[in-house]
Amino acid sequence: MSTENKTIPYKIYLEENEMPKTWYNLRADMKNKPAPLLNPATLQPMTAEELSAVFCDELVKQELDNDTRDYPIPQEIQDFYKMYRPSPLVRAYCLEKKLQTPAKIYYKFEGNNTSGSHKLNSAIAQAYYAKMQGLKGVTTETGAGQWGTALSMACSYFGLDCKVFMVKVSYEQKPFRREVMRTYGASVVPSPSDTTQVGRKILAEFPGTTGSLGCAISEAVETAVSNPGYRYVLGSVLNQVLLHQSVIGMESKIAMDKYGIVPDVIIGCAGGGSNLGGLIAPFMGEKLRGERDYQFIAVEPASCPSLTRGRFAYDFCDTGKVCPMAKMYTLGSGFIPSPNHAGGLRYHGMSSILSQLYDDGYMEARSVEQTSVFRAAEEFARVEGILPAPESSHAIRVAIDEALKCKETGEEKTILFGLTGTGYFDLVAYEKFHNGEMSDYIPSDEDLQKSFATLPKVIG
Amino acid sequence: MSTENKTIPYKIYLEENEMPKTWYNLRADMKNKPAPLLNPATLQPMTAEELSAVFCDELVKQELDNDTRDYPIPQEIQDFYKMYRPSPLVRAYCLEKKLQTPAKIYYKFEGNNTSGSHKLNSAIAQAYYAKMQGLKGVTTETGAGQWGTALSMACSYFGLDCKVFMVKVSYEQKPFRREVMRTYGASVVPSPSDTTQVGRKILAEFPGTTGSLGCAISEAVETAVSNPGYRYVLGSVLNQVLLHQSVIGMESKIAMDKYGIVPDVIIGCAGGGSNLGGLIAPFMGEKLRGERDYQFIAVEPASCPSLTRGRFAYDFCDTGKVCPMAKMYTLGSGFIPSPNHAGGLRYHGMSSILSQLYDDGYMEARSVEQTSVFRAAEEFARVEGILPAPESSHAIRVAIDEALKCKETGEEKTILFGLTGTGYFDLVAYEKFHNGEMSDYIPSDEDLQKSFATLPKVIG
Repeated sequence: MSTENKTIPYKIYLEENEMPKTWYNLRADMKNKPAPLLNPATLQPMTAEELSAVFCDELVKQELDNDTRDYPIPQEIQDFYKMYRPSPLVRAYCLEKKLQTPAKIYYKFEGNNTSGSHKLNSAIAQAYYAKMQGLKGVTTETGAGQWGTALSMACSYFGLDCKVFMVKVSYEQKPFRREVMRTYGASVVPSPSDTTQVGRKILAEFPGTTGSLGCAISEAVETAVSNPGYRYVLGSVLNQVLLHQSVIGMESKIAMDKYGIVPDVIIGCAGGGSNLGGLIAPFMGEKLRGERDYQFIAVEPASCPSLTRGRFAYDFCDTGKVCPMAKMYTLGSGFIPSPNHAGGLRYHGMSSILSQLYDDGYMEARSVEQTSVFRAAEEFARVEGILPAPESSHAIRVAIDEALKCKETGEEKTILFGLTGTGYFDLVAYEKFHNGEMSDYIPSDEDLQKSFATLPKVIG
Repeated sequence: MSTENKTIPYKIYLEENEMPKTWYNLRADMKNKPAPLLNPATLQPMTAEELSAVFCDELVKQELDNDTRDYPIPQEIQDFYKMYRPSPLVRAYCLEKKLQTPAKIYYKFEGNNTSGSHKLNSAIAQAYYAKMQGLKGVTTETGAGQWGTALSMACSYFGLDCKVFMVKVSYEQKPFRREVMRTYGASVVPSPSDTTQVGRKILAEFPGTTGSLGCAISEAVETAVSNPGYRYVLGSVLNQVLLHQSVIGMESKIAMDKYGIVPDVIIGCAGGGSNLGGLIAPFMGEKLRGERDYQFIAVEPASCPSLTRGRFAYDFCDTGKVCPMAKMYTLGSGFIPSPNHAGGLRYHGMSSILSQLYDDGYMEARSVEQTSVFRAAEEFARVEGILPAPESSHAIRVAIDEALKCKETGEEKTILFGLTGTGYFDLVAYEKFHNGEMSDYIPSDEDLQKSFATLPKVIG
């Protein structure tokens, strides 16, 4: 190609008129579609009507739509994207030099916005559809606060009320993200709270509890369902979220095509799958359509290994078991990562789309231990400047490993990885790492047997 | 101009080949040059030889050079700039809409790097010249840690040792930036420390002291002077720093020229002057040469009003009085901002270059109170997405005020302001603001008389 000889800049920014106008729905090209969500009471596929009590109508449509390939991005969302997108596609010249690798390393950096991550891509879409539906507001849960921050920003932009249930221990110990959310006008409630039935029940049973994500989800869903004009929104796992996050991969592909770059390996960290699913989407589409082959690697923490050690089965999405059931790679909804696990990526399951693709052999998965992840984070920060989030650093770890393999073999592979966000709110973990107080943890087979026992028995 | 009809994108990014290749030395176009630094012992202008005991040779040359207009940016620094520059010039469409102003508002955003501010522009230059001189490392002081972080990143890139003396109270109460610095391999010492004579002396006299910037400067200078292969570096105030920071204004001007945009008003926050001096440099150059007129507004905290209420006189640059003396607008080296002052911009004096320009009538200055600054910060964050640093929010305050004036008068002014950085490490202050616990403070005339009494008597 004539474009192949262009000098590759350190950072490739698309022009505004080159930015994607559509999201890409990967499901349209999947032969084996992801399994449908099930109603936990009837074990029948959730209908649009059932889902619309919890989610916005348009998002329900997106969630259930396995066929439409391209979704036009509404102009209002395109305009919001212009405030922090396109995100740069960066050539990691300095990391390559440091590693002395013949590999060419690129990363798509999603951290240049106040939410500090890619989460904003879907938050703004979900807030938009809530606004279009004439809703008053939305509810959600948040752990450390990354998703809650993104949603607060999106709701502030559209003038929607935003109620965030924040796991109590995070609310108290990580006040900074809470203050960012308050800056954007969100009401942030420590969970469990006395504002919901389920919260009051849990507080009565366990007066000293510091909360859990499962409980916060239950409170957020109850609040949405019992308040007219409110719906519940979620930042990962769901098909709709992967659809919105396809903007990451679309931009990456447009930028790479512009310079004639073809990645051999595409690497992303995987918790619920929102970033990985978005990053790989258009490349995976080409692979599914038989147009071009790529190697995809999902990277997960060894302490929460849903793809590498989980089961592909229907499971509850939340510990409270109030949400629909999903077929996915899962450790069981009773799985709780070791307390020494520092980063995110602690969800017990994985996006149904990615689970299906993994099960069908289109994607690999690797698990990595957290001290090696922080070593990669520090090495990356020192040469590339950016202080990465622990989650993103899982992808850095494997990107470095792959580049070092190229050094051994002499292969000049082109590696693309997703740098999902910044670590400015994760410095307690960095401090532990610097002080040598960070340890690794791999759940034993017995641990996993116990959490697998929380899988529903009735369906395979 | 034909360019005037181009649609202005939300964000203007220069291409790599459009980025500035030179820094602009504003002094070359000043009729009244900034007064020279004086040796506090002899009251004679500091010679290059005297200065080179403390600073790197090339930086001494830059410090003393009032004549060379354009300094080529060394290729290694240009390469580093490419990792986080060009910084975007953003059209604040959403803020304009929110304010319903006919004004056109632009901001140059310097926060998209791990140091979180423009400080990196000079840190990398100073580290480069230290490396070129074959030095082992550099020393500096830091308060909350913004400058220390930038310098740590720069030193890590060039493999230089970096010793940061961090005011003890910040070291203990603001551990996050300390951890960022450690990630980049810097050694961070709480000041006062027992590693220096001056530190030990102060610890003996005031065993419970929590430290001060003045003391940290003294320790950093002593360490540089007494360790072979080390020099001291400083992040603001100095002429050399303004030279490096001219990259902000150069990029802004190139981007504006490209789209045929001419600012009427240029606004920047002013502490020591590094950002303001850099932002306005090429525009001020045109004004000094009589080519075009602009209105320049320096914005400072009402609690530390060096331009609006200070005296234009020779003063000590540090409370320890070990550094050369500078002629500047100053409140006296004994001035300490009220403890309720939240943001930075707490230096008692102001860059000699900016002081001279202000005294010659080329620039205005305004002081603003901190609760109004945080109100502006929050208003900005909610529509433009970015969570601004308290320092930067001083400029936002006045930009909003000017835009609202345009709303009254109907004038379609073009406003450019400097958004120097992000507020991710300032959330304790945001929390105070949200909780209604933030107050304003304006020093009384008596307060200022007391601090003016610390001015040296011998020279006017």
